[in-house]
Amino acid sequence: MPSAKTQPARGMRDFLPEEVRKRDYVIGVIKDVYERYGFEPLETPAAENIETLMGKYGEEGNQLIFKILKRGVHEGTGEADLALRYDLTVPLARVVAEYRDKLPKFFKRYQIQPVWRADRPARGRFREFYQCDVDVLGSYSMMVEAEICAAASEVLVKLGFNDFCLRLNHRKVLTGILGIGGVSLDKHDAALIALDKLDKIGSDGVKKEFAARGIDEAAGDRLLGFFSDLSALEHAAEIAAEDNAQQAFSKAVLGRIVEFVKDNEIGAKGVDELQSILEFADAMGIAQRIKIDPSLARGLSYYTGAIMEISVKDLAGSLGGGGRYDNLVGMFLGQEVPACGFSLGLERILVVMNERNMFPTWLDSSPADVMVTIWNKVSVAESIKLAQELRAAGLRVDLYPEADKLGKQFKYASSLRIPLVAVLGEDEQSKGLVALKDMQSGEQRAVTRGDVSTMIKELLAQRRNDAT
Amino acid sequence: MPSAKTQPARGMRDFLPEEVRKRDYVIGVIKDVYERYGFEPLETPAAENIETLMGKYGEEGNQLIFKILKRGVHEGTGEADLALRYDLTVPLARVVAEYRDKLPKFFKRYQIQPVWRADRPARGRFREFYQCDVDVLGSYSMMVEAEICAAASEVLVKLGFNDFCLRLNHRKVLTGILGIGGVSLDKHDAALIALDKLDKIGSDGVKKEFAARGIDEAAGDRLLGFFSDLSALEHAAEIAAEDNAQQAFSKAVLGRIVEFVKDNEIGAKGVDELQSILEFADAMGIAQRIKIDPSLARGLSYYTGAIMEISVKDLAGSLGGGGRYDNLVGMFLGQEVPACGFSLGLERILVVMNERNMFPTWLDSSPADVMVTIWNKVSVAESIKLAQELRAAGLRVDLYPEADKLGKQFKYASSLRIPLVAVLGEDEQSKGLVALKDMQSGEQRAVTRGDVSTMIKELLAQRRNDAT
Repeated sequence: MPSAKTQPARGMRDFLPEEVRKRDYVIGVIKDVYERYGFEPLETPAAENIETLMGKYGEEGNQLIFKILKRGVHEGTGEADLALRYDLTVPLARVVAEYRDKLPKFFKRYQIQPVWRADRPARGRFREFYQCDVDVLGSYSMMVEAEICAAASEVLVKLGFNDFCLRLNHRKVLTGILGIGGVSLDKHDAALIALDKLDKIGSDGVKKEFAARGIDEAAGDRLLGFFSDLSALEHAAEIAAEDNAQQAFSKAVLGRIVEFVKDNEIGAKGVDELQSILEFADAMGIAQRIKIDPSLARGLSYYTGAIMEISVKDLAGSLGGGGRYDNLVGMFLGQEVPACGFSLGLERILVVMNERNMFPTWLDSSPADVMVTIWNKVSVAESIKLAQELRAAGLRVDLYPEADKLGKQFKYASSLRIPLVAVLGEDEQSKGLVALKDMQSGEQRAVTRGDVSTMIKELLAQRRNDAT
Repeated sequence: MPSAKTQPARGMRDFLPEEVRKRDYVIGVIKDVYERYGFEPLETPAAENIETLMGKYGEEGNQLIFKILKRGVHEGTGEADLALRYDLTVPLARVVAEYRDKLPKFFKRYQIQPVWRADRPARGRFREFYQCDVDVLGSYSMMVEAEICAAASEVLVKLGFNDFCLRLNHRKVLTGILGIGGVSLDKHDAALIALDKLDKIGSDGVKKEFAARGIDEAAGDRLLGFFSDLSALEHAAEIAAEDNAQQAFSKAVLGRIVEFVKDNEIGAKGVDELQSILEFADAMGIAQRIKIDPSLARGLSYYTGAIMEISVKDLAGSLGGGGRYDNLVGMFLGQEVPACGFSLGLERILVVMNERNMFPTWLDSSPADVMVTIWNKVSVAESIKLAQELRAAGLRVDLYPEADKLGKQFKYASSLRIPLVAVLGEDEQSKGLVALKDMQSGEQRAVTRGDVSTMIKELLAQRRNDAT
């Protein structure tokens, strides 16, 4: 009896070959760039002990973690002892605590693996999705922030993005701004949640949110005044629109922040660090990508320093984000290890690349370079031998598995968009030839058996040149 | 407060960079070979609806499946609605049923993903492990069996295995042998489980097992007689040990089977199919790898035709196995789709390759080709620029993140086995030079800034040549 359900589980996806090739292409670019920046690969298990994950992502996170039932005689208890990986940062912190002695002093790792969240599925939001993280552990230097931003930027440039913007802020700057504004420390988180919506709901909306969250009215007004001044500044910069407009704007914003928070020690330290990052980013060649944005807050509570987010114009939400989190490893190790990282969202990158048709044409969606046909039952062995010869020459070769009518075999190759088809008819067999048909032009030529792999490679190279 | 537990979950593993590189190397070889055979990549979600998996792997399988608790208000019920992927074959069958119209008539797919089983962890047995599957759906042709065996063999050859043996049998042949032997149909499974142990417990052991499982004594004796005759044949072949000994032996065994089962229609059909497979395997160039082994049973109940297993001398158990399963897709689709596949066990391949030191020396375990040092705080930007230039030239470049003492930086590069270190001292900076130190020879040379990436590539090529 057939099972009614053949769809994947809710919010999860099957990736058919064409989609896997696109994903692998993007992952390949990410790996290549990260390795050129000296990052090393790490992999952790899909499931973690449940106590490793619980309490690390806030109350909402706890709800969204997929929990795994105990097994055997304990299954009936309904208790969970394992949980699916929710992000790549907490497992990294656990790994650094566990293998501290085996890892280099500055551990630069990348990790590209799926994570699972029981979110309500929506367009572009899945319950299983890939994260592509880079992190550097072991250094307080702002060179780390700059290098991470440069690596993430280079990934996007290599993928063909040219309109992204890297928004940069600092948790200490936020603390300074809120402090100077007059928001009491216990209301900082509430104020940040409200401010984070400034883009979407405007000054009036945020003012209402401040009231609802019990933020002192005068303090709220001071903050909104500061941020609306910055908006005016941005507007002016956009009008100026010079080559180095972004850099000039960032400097101007930093100037305003300095003015505002100079009497707040924490805020002033944050400004110093942002200045260092900008200076290093300039040497990295990515200063024009960076926009200082004091309203950027980022949800996760574990950030302690710089925070950043990359966005493109026509995508709500970000392509990725990150920041410094000097305390997280300490939760496992009992000893502070400085850390800073950035996470690229593979699914969102793919959404935009699909919409914009950004995949290279050479990302061939055919499963083979050539298909070898079967002439008849008697000569199957000859076709098999030819296929093996072509494979040994490095070609991707499909071999039709049955002695079907030749027309049917050609039709099949055509449906798979295989560019070339090889035929070993009786005549060809007796003369030591192979008939090679170009499926696009319809042209057919007879090639000696020894030359056929070279000929196929030439024809493929020609097609590739024609396509570009 | 530090968490006490920083180990991965029981039976699961963290893969540090060196290990990931080895795994990626093996996976790369597997992908390359499978793509040359015309297989296309497929990926399915880690979690499946629980009813997709339950009942597909027998009673023991049901116990070993990791089950995921319902979420939100349903969490308290202790019920599971999802489960972790247990193999790659059942998800494939579901995918083929779901996307039948989108997939080619002959769907040749490979899939390399982790699976999870709540087995008791043991040496070489993990709760999360990778399977590397190839399957062909849509054809009853024995060319499929031969092609799959050829692809799996070529993977192992490319990885450097030269002593493996591909044992081949057929479920219908087994049915024929048991039928002729006089075992009643309802006792076939029991008899196979006992026979499967012949290698380990010998004839007397199997005889006892037969008795315990209620197999008719005379039937059991006939079977054991048949198999001990075959052992004698194998012994003789080993003594002969000619170049084509394996092929001659397989033919001799097939002859014995034909003699034994010729009056059993099902068994005779199985023999015919084995003969076809051998013929096609000969054309594929892998006949010398194949050994017909009528005692091979393989546990899974869904096989319907040929079954195969690859083993090497010094590993208990197999490196992989597979077979034909023409009914499994029908459980989802309600319509028979012929299918045949082979699964390579990545973890076992890695165990043997590690033990035998089979990884290529060029599988560099250093995270970078060159490390750029920091001369002092003032010249950080210069070092950053040099690192970016070298990265743009395609090199893997680590950049020391702090203005530490130079000796410390060298020591660090040495601890990471980075072969070359670049220094931008004041003298070099003023002259537009870079000092490049070979960490192995200790040799240091001054290179003009424009030539440094070319020089580094030359030195790396030289090192690589020296190593081989």
